[in-house]
Amino acid sequence: MSRNDRFTRLVRIAHPAGRRPVYARCEGDLFITLAGDVADLHQAIRQGRPLPEDGARIRKDRAQLLAPACPSKVICVGLNYRAHAEEMGKPLPPEPLIFLKPSTAVIGPDEAIELPPDAHEVHHEGELAMIVGERIKDVREDQAMDAIFGYTCACDVTARDIQRRESRYTRAKGFDTFAPLGPALALTATFNPAEHTLRCWVDGELRQQTRLNDFIFELPRVVAFISSIMTLLPGDVILTGTPAGVGPITEGQRVEVAIDGIGTLHNPVRRRP
Amino acid sequence: MSRNDRFTRLVRIAHPAGRRPVYARCEGDLFITLAGDVADLHQAIRQGRPLPEDGARIRKDRAQLLAPACPSKVICVGLNYRAHAEEMGKPLPPEPLIFLKPSTAVIGPDEAIELPPDAHEVHHEGELAMIVGERIKDVREDQAMDAIFGYTCACDVTARDIQRRESRYTRAKGFDTFAPLGPALALTATFNPAEHTLRCWVDGELRQQTRLNDFIFELPRVVAFISSIMTLLPGDVILTGTPAGVGPITEGQRVEVAIDGIGTLHNPVRRRP
Repeated sequence: MSRNDRFTRLVRIAHPAGRRPVYARCEGDLFITLAGDVADLHQAIRQGRPLPEDGARIRKDRAQLLAPACPSKVICVGLNYRAHAEEMGKPLPPEPLIFLKPSTAVIGPDEAIELPPDAHEVHHEGELAMIVGERIKDVREDQAMDAIFGYTCACDVTARDIQRRESRYTRAKGFDTFAPLGPALALTATFNPAEHTLRCWVDGELRQQTRLNDFIFELPRVVAFISSIMTLLPGDVILTGTPAGVGPITEGQRVEVAIDGIGTLHNPVRRRP
Repeated sequence: MSRNDRFTRLVRIAHPAGRRPVYARCEGDLFITLAGDVADLHQAIRQGRPLPEDGARIRKDRAQLLAPACPSKVICVGLNYRAHAEEMGKPLPPEPLIFLKPSTAVIGPDEAIELPPDAHEVHHEGELAMIVGERIKDVREDQAMDAIFGYTCACDVTARDIQRRESRYTRAKGFDTFAPLGPALALTATFNPAEHTLRCWVDGELRQQTRLNDFIFELPRVVAFISSIMTLLPGDVILTGTPAGVGPITEGQRVEVAIDGIGTLHNPVRRRP
């Protein structure tokens, strides 16, 4: 049994019969497709029921992995690791600083991060992402994590030159393809991020590495804080901030973000055609 | 014939039989429901076909008006009128500065703007909104307006104290209920904003008034610029910036944003319960 088998992981894949994408669980060399969307599956878990299967069995090497969520919004926390705040020359924030990426920025495993023509210094920011499982508003910190369906790897791709020039985040971080997610999601019920490590490589060179227990704002605080502002919907994605070690990516390179227990998200980098 | 009858206006209303919300056109005291979503209706117009009807006739006084779009994202332009840049003490930007409001901030006519407990100075910002009719990316300026389905009134509600403190927009402008839209949309094919005036009142006091022909960045430029960053989807909403005259709104007040030819968007203000 490999180390990853201790965690219940789901993937979201293109439907073999051309219907809407489906969630599936991993079993050996197969994906077993599930019935229902994030909200349905999360409710089954909350109620202690088994994940409802819809029966299809697909060989892993024949399946097309997609981003493990189809969010209405991607909410990101800036500056959530002390060492990254230092490398950016910014003071520690008294409250979480949030920004949004549009859903059109999301891509899945192996899809290309496209460098826009007007961005000349694009950075990787490897991050832990949370996937929301149910509609929440004004959730309390001690109940916040009950609403989280699972965790995945993310890259908060950032046009640093535009961010610096505008002192704003939307354009610098909102380009199409600037939110890779995947490859799988580890269900919250079986996975405790604090026991795991996030790493980010560019062309095999380790750029970022952190234990996921060093946040300035702990995950329940982040979820509660965001839900005090805006309603979170099933499938919404929260990026939890990047550790130190951000740096440039260029055409032809390959970015990998890995969290042990979840898997490795690979994305090639290319100049937008 | 009233002045407004020169423009083809549509509304989005709760379906009388409890199904999904529908678009409808106005005919005297009636709404005639239409078949299809924004993309379907926009395509019919582009192809010169009549708007497809689904036949239901609803008395206007019995219909519940909804926000005239259900966007995947709301993209806003900051500082797009010279006089507003001056009142905010900001230099004119060399390029459009954009930010996002989440779809969860959208409310319709007569719904309450809710003041969050942690915001102590909330401002109205009356604006012209564009509703995107088709999927576009990297659209050229001279073709940009062909992709716009229609125009409506919007209020970019802003917690000015939070905006000032954070120098960031997402939280200050992203609260639930902070994006009222409506009451109707005027189809692009029949409505030229440059010939019209936007006004914003608080409790009947005129606070903002501008002709819609004084933008720093003209509408085709705004659409082309945003589409150079992110794919725009049918139903997405673009807020075009606010003119001078922004100011506080408090519990119990009533905000109205009007554009002649479109109608008046009324929203009461209350403290979040």
